Amino acid sequence: MASQVIAYDSTLRDGAQAQGVSFTVEDKLKIVERLDELGVGYIEAGNPGSNPKDLEFFERVGALKLKNSKIIAFGSTRKVGVNAADDNNLKSLLRANTGAVAIFGKSWDYQVTDILRTTLQENLNMIGDTIAFLKQQGKEVVFDAEHFYDGYKANADYAMQTLQAAAHAGADVLCLCDTNGGTFPNEIFEITQKVVARFPKVQVGIHCHNDCEMAVANSVAAVQAGATQVQGTINGIGERCGNANLCSIIPNLQLKLGLSCIPQENIATLTAAARFVSDVANMTFNDKAPYVGNDAFSHKGGMHIDAVSKNPISYEHINPAQVGNVRHILVSEVAGRSALLSKIHEVDASLGKDSADTRRILEHIKALEHEGYQFESAEGSVQLLVRRDLGKFRPFFAFKEYQVSIHEPAINGVNSSASIKLLVNGQEEVMSSEGDGPVNALDKAMRRALERFYPAIKEVRLTDYKVRVLDSDRATAAKVRVLIESADHHESWTTTGVSTDVVDASWRAMIDAIEYKLMRDQERVSSSEQAVAI
Amino acid sequence: MASQVIAYDSTLRDGAQAQGVSFTVEDKLKIVERLDELGVGYIEAGNPGSNPKDLEFFERVGALKLKNSKIIAFGSTRKVGVNAADDNNLKSLLRANTGAVAIFGKSWDYQVTDILRTTLQENLNMIGDTIAFLKQQGKEVVFDAEHFYDGYKANADYAMQTLQAAAHAGADVLCLCDTNGGTFPNEIFEITQKVVARFPKVQVGIHCHNDCEMAVANSVAAVQAGATQVQGTINGIGERCGNANLCSIIPNLQLKLGLSCIPQENIATLTAAARFVSDVANMTFNDKAPYVGNDAFSHKGGMHIDAVSKNPISYEHINPAQVGNVRHILVSEVAGRSALLSKIHEVDASLGKDSADTRRILEHIKALEHEGYQFESAEGSVQLLVRRDLGKFRPFFAFKEYQVSIHEPAINGVNSSASIKLLVNGQEEVMSSEGDGPVNALDKAMRRALERFYPAIKEVRLTDYKVRVLDSDRATAAKVRVLIESADHHESWTTTGVSTDVVDASWRAMIDAIEYKLMRDQERVSSSEQAVAI
Repeated sequence: MASQVIAYDSTLRDGAQAQGVSFTVEDKLKIVERLDELGVGYIEAGNPGSNPKDLEFFERVGALKLKNSKIIAFGSTRKVGVNAADDNNLKSLLRANTGAVAIFGKSWDYQVTDILRTTLQENLNMIGDTIAFLKQQGKEVVFDAEHFYDGYKANADYAMQTLQAAAHAGADVLCLCDTNGGTFPNEIFEITQKVVARFPKVQVGIHCHNDCEMAVANSVAAVQAGATQVQGTINGIGERCGNANLCSIIPNLQLKLGLSCIPQENIATLTAAARFVSDVANMTFNDKAPYVGNDAFSHKGGMHIDAVSKNPISYEHINPAQVGNVRHILVSEVAGRSALLSKIHEVDASLGKDSADTRRILEHIKALEHEGYQFESAEGSVQLLVRRDLGKFRPFFAFKEYQVSIHEPAINGVNSSASIKLLVNGQEEVMSSEGDGPVNALDKAMRRALERFYPAIKEVRLTDYKVRVLDSDRATAAKVRVLIESADHHESWTTTGVSTDVVDASWRAMIDAIEYKLMRDQERVSSSEQAVAI
Repeated sequence: MASQVIAYDSTLRDGAQAQGVSFTVEDKLKIVERLDELGVGYIEAGNPGSNPKDLEFFERVGALKLKNSKIIAFGSTRKVGVNAADDNNLKSLLRANTGAVAIFGKSWDYQVTDILRTTLQENLNMIGDTIAFLKQQGKEVVFDAEHFYDGYKANADYAMQTLQAAAHAGADVLCLCDTNGGTFPNEIFEITQKVVARFPKVQVGIHCHNDCEMAVANSVAAVQAGATQVQGTINGIGERCGNANLCSIIPNLQLKLGLSCIPQENIATLTAAARFVSDVANMTFNDKAPYVGNDAFSHKGGMHIDAVSKNPISYEHINPAQVGNVRHILVSEVAGRSALLSKIHEVDASLGKDSADTRRILEHIKALEHEGYQFESAEGSVQLLVRRDLGKFRPFFAFKEYQVSIHEPAINGVNSSASIKLLVNGQEEVMSSEGDGPVNALDKAMRRALERFYPAIKEVRLTDYKVRVLDSDRATAAKVRVLIESADHHESWTTTGVSTDVVDASWRAMIDAIEYKLMRDQERVSSSEQAVAI
């Protein structure tokens, strides 16, 4: 196992094959800059032969000054029976004008004869000619041996010949692909070890897919067998079940195996980078993602929380700060007091576990939980509750009443309207709005009423809305719990409301969402004033 | 490697530790029945010591007739310095009245001395006493060796002593837990192999967490090293990054390694089971999930589609039908035309897969799915749709309009009222009602309007009500999907509605619920008339 492993990112090429993902040129440029900051060695950024839009991207990316990453243009070996120099895809590839290119070719005999429908020898020539031609053009060349492991299992000798053709033509890297994602770690290890032994002078890479939920383990197994380049994508995005997830592979290699993969000081930016790419790709971020997910270091069970507060290694395999993530202690009925205390300490560090205030807040939370509230994922509402109960919250407005009406069929395309009465700075404010359903009408009416006083509310986007029915056997008279996730350019927060009326439960969560925003803005102002004062 | 590996499901116990998951007793019973149908060997269903609500569940689950699965109650070793017979948690465990129990105990020396704060010897006694006591009570006992791999790496000798204490006391299974999810497959393999060699007469199990994104690979590695019981959860739900995902492990073991894990004929129900559990847990289903996800066999790239149409093994590691999943090419095709066909055949057995009627119904379902409907778990609505589209449904009433108003604060304790206009037997019927929230008011108004004409409606209880937000980034303007489960003394059925307005979505599902009841009563009458005629 080498001490240095190159991270090779294909988010913008193989990742873009994922269902529902499409990047604009601007998106791609933003992600390139972020990946370079993270410090991956290569960024495979597009396939100019199959996607003409990519040429504009390659033109513009050339103007960026990158610190860590080389840009890779991706293409295939020359077509059957065509000279490499005359091949249109290769011409497009060269127009991308990158220093390094990746070329994929077939390594599975069956794929050559039945899909490509040519001879095994012509396929070897295609690999050799293409790479020799690109080396003549001064390119650094990665050879992606497509279906290598399936090919090796079917015909080891031929699979090795394809690598030999690439190596002989001067390929800098032989990257072994588990294209269908069906190979197991022990097989990856054994086969990769054989390739490494056979080609001691060429770098060996690994490219895995997650169809057996083993892409990360497979990538690590290949490194343990001697591979020194690991291809993957941020958050594992990619076709079908996704590509190998660099957000797990990088810390696995660097923090667990002690290998050097990206600059050590950048590991702590991994969580932010993962969320950034997810945002740009407009994908829902996976809360349960290892290392970088919101839940990756969340503790719910009372026993776990007690142990983690004694020593985090009890239930954490690494310190979350190493990857720029944070520990969440979830407040829940089971969890009890130690979880809550950490929240209280954010407001008043002097309060102890057994203080009267702590006990009172705990009783309040228990009473609300009994009503059906659940605070483990509603951090925003917990913070408000703690501040309210400690007398540290100055209300920004008071609720007087609302009235909502719904009419089906819709009248002139509108089915819901809401009117609302609030008291702001001693002034009664009445506002109404129509909407897509009663909750939306109420939301719009409240924002219109408050924005005049607090223009910052315009920054709040409600980014997620969840409804959970509680005592669901009471059916339509059941209580419902609403969770609303909101975000501004600083952070995102979740608030909650419970009621037998879904509109009212939503309303409670919306009120908390807005109050949290105003409270945090106020705290940010006072802490920056403090900072200036120091 | 044994040829038979037992699947041990902990969705209802360790899975329930996941953030945002909380099961009602009804939910748990439904999942137990589904897991039994799938054919897992064990269902670890709750921790009666830490959760008193679980006792009601264990009482009721005892009445179910299960074909394949044994129910497991979970608890911990006796407390420090307490007799096993006097330990309150163990008393609760016995009250669950299951034939098999799982007991977790510490295997990591540091956890004993620093978290439990007792001596290494007392911990061995706790393990031994507890298991001996449970064996005296006639229980089958699984010993979960918590933090076994971390413990082994820290102090192999002591970790082995804890297993020895359990084995000596008569434990039936020694289950090795990677509690923090930080262990790599090669380590799991090596350590498990040593345990298997040391305890040749006891079954060895594996319990992994996904913190390094290797839980599936780790579970498989343990089996390859000789473990014969695999613990995990459906969809990998669980605390932090989740538990090992049985939906990937089972097909990995059974389809790839050729081991026997669940009855072979049930493997094809895996996809449906995964989606069922996700629905009951009210979680968003992971489209990219290996084997069972909607995207797992989706092909987007033109070249891939071409190759897949030449031969699916080009870009598919298994045939999706093996796990009950389907291939998606270009636009998504409705899951299971054959599933739909079976519904159609209930109404008209003469219609073929390619008949114009079948195609038309399929198109209709596709259009509704595009709007956000999902019929996997809404059998009642599917049956109505098929009958309506085939012209075999005689409407029992026609909807004219409704109007709902909500007022907060409540006036005289009432916050919602609804009025409704229906046409029944050519007669306009107007009715109104107050309720606990707008949905309940509407439900009551509809029932009052219809009961005069159809008294059987009084038999309908709405037994479950679920709300799922779809495009949740549209926040309060998002579409919601409502599922309503109803029951009478014959059967229970689920109906669905989708709208940007949660009240309207609920209304659509309620209408279907009532229409289904009336339709089925009618069908029952005609079939019993037939029976009499014969």
